[in-house]
Amino acid sequence: MAAPELILYELAGANPELRFSPHCWKARMALAHKGLQAVGEPWRFAEKDKISFSGQGLVPVLVHGNESVSYSWRIALYLEELFSTDPALFGGKDAMSTTRFVNSWADTTLLAAVAKVILVDVYNCLDGNDRGYFRASREKRFGMALEAVVADQPARLLDLRMALQPLGHMLRKQEFISGSAPAYADYCVFGMFMWARVCSPVDLLEPDDPIVAWREQLLDAFGGLARSAVCVGA
Amino acid sequence: MAAPELILYELAGANPELRFSPHCWKARMALAHKGLQAVGEPWRFAEKDKISFSGQGLVPVLVHGNESVSYSWRIALYLEELFSTDPALFGGKDAMSTTRFVNSWADTTLLAAVAKVILVDVYNCLDGNDRGYFRASREKRFGMALEAVVADQPARLLDLRMALQPLGHMLRKQEFISGSAPAYADYCVFGMFMWARVCSPVDLLEPDDPIVAWREQLLDAFGGLARSAVCVGA
Repeated sequence: MAAPELILYELAGANPELRFSPHCWKARMALAHKGLQAVGEPWRFAEKDKISFSGQGLVPVLVHGNESVSYSWRIALYLEELFSTDPALFGGKDAMSTTRFVNSWADTTLLAAVAKVILVDVYNCLDGNDRGYFRASREKRFGMALEAVVADQPARLLDLRMALQPLGHMLRKQEFISGSAPAYADYCVFGMFMWARVCSPVDLLEPDDPIVAWREQLLDAFGGLARSAVCVGA
Repeated sequence: MAAPELILYELAGANPELRFSPHCWKARMALAHKGLQAVGEPWRFAEKDKISFSGQGLVPVLVHGNESVSYSWRIALYLEELFSTDPALFGGKDAMSTTRFVNSWADTTLLAAVAKVILVDVYNCLDGNDRGYFRASREKRFGMALEAVVADQPARLLDLRMALQPLGHMLRKQEFISGSAPAYADYCVFGMFMWARVCSPVDLLEPDDPIVAWREQLLDAFGGLARSAVCVGA
C-alpha cells in the first residue's frame, strides 16, 4: 500500500507560486528535515472554504491521509511523533521546551521587526481579494497605515538588526541554534528570513553579518529547497 | 575524604551582602539545582588581584578544590558534566544548544532592556572604589551618561515589557522555559530579574503580567534561595 499523500496548504500571493508565509516555511522545512515530500497547495486569505475541513481559518494546514493538522508548531510535533525514526526535529522533550522559547521569540520580537521593514512589500504580493483583509487587520495590529509602518525603512532595518542580536551573539559560539546541525529551532527563525526573501527586494542583513553564513546554509539545505523558492521580481 | 569545598566569587555592592550580578545568579541557581552549596565570596570590580588565579578579571568564578572555572555558561557546563547524576541543567546536548540561544537572548536583548531601567540603581549600590570604573565603562557602552540612560524610566519599562514578549507568549503554553520544571534556560533569564530585585526598588513587571507567576516559582525554588537574597533598602 502506498504511503498516504501529504498536502501542505500554504499562503500564496497573486502569483500562486509566491509562497511567503513564515509559518508555512517552518512546516515546509520540518517536512524536508524528515525526508518527506508534500504537495504544496496554494491558499489565499479569502479562501476560508478551502480549509474549512481543518476547523479553523489559517494556514499552514497539513493533510496526511485522513488526518489534518493546523498551526506550524502542531505540525512539527505531529511529524516528530509519527516519523520518530527519521532525523529529530527537536532532539528530546527538554529541547522541545527550549525550542518553544525560540519559536516564541521568532513569532513576537522577530516577526514584528521584520514586518516593520517589509509590510508594504507583503501587501503588494497579495491577490486583489486578500488585500482588503490584510490592510485592515495589519493596520489594526500596528495602529497605523501600512505605509506609515515602513516609512523610515533604514531606521526599521537598524531596529531589526538590534532585535537579531541574540542570534548573531549565539552564532559566534555554535553553528546552528540546534547545535552542529539545523533542526526546528533553526527553521522557526529561518521562516522569517524566507518571508522577506520571497516578498521583498530588501536584504535584511548586511553582507558582513555573522547571520549570513547561517542563512546561506539553510538556503542550501535539502537540495536548495529554500534557495529555489520563487521570489517576487525574480 | 570530604568533598572539596565550593566557593563562588560573586559581585558585591558597598554592602557586601548585596549580590546583584545577573551572571552570578545564573551560577548560584545552577549550583542549587545540582543540590550543591557554595560559599559565596564577595568580590568588587576593583579587586582584580583577588581572582587573578582564574586568569581573567570577572566574576562569577567557581572554585572547586583545585579547579577554577570562570563565566556562568562554563560553570553550568562544568557542573553538568561533573555532577551528571544529579538533576540535569540542560537535559541533553540538543537542549544545551537551544538553551544557549535563550542565554544569548538574556545577555543581549534582556540585559540591555533591564539596564536601561536600573542602571543608576546599580551604580548607587556599588562600593566607592567601583563607581569610577562602572560609570566610565557603562557610559562608553551606552554612549551617554548613566542618568540619561534611565531618564525616561516609564518609557524604558514599556520597552522592557515589549522585549519580554517572547517569554510571556511562551508561558501561556508551558510553565517554564525548560518545560514542566525549571532548569538552566530559566535561570539565565531569571538572573536578570534578580539583578533588578537586589539593586532597585522598581518592579519590572505589572502585577497581572503572566511572567509574575514564573518569577514567583523561581523565587521560591530551593527553599527560597532567591527570595531570601538581601536587597537594597530592605
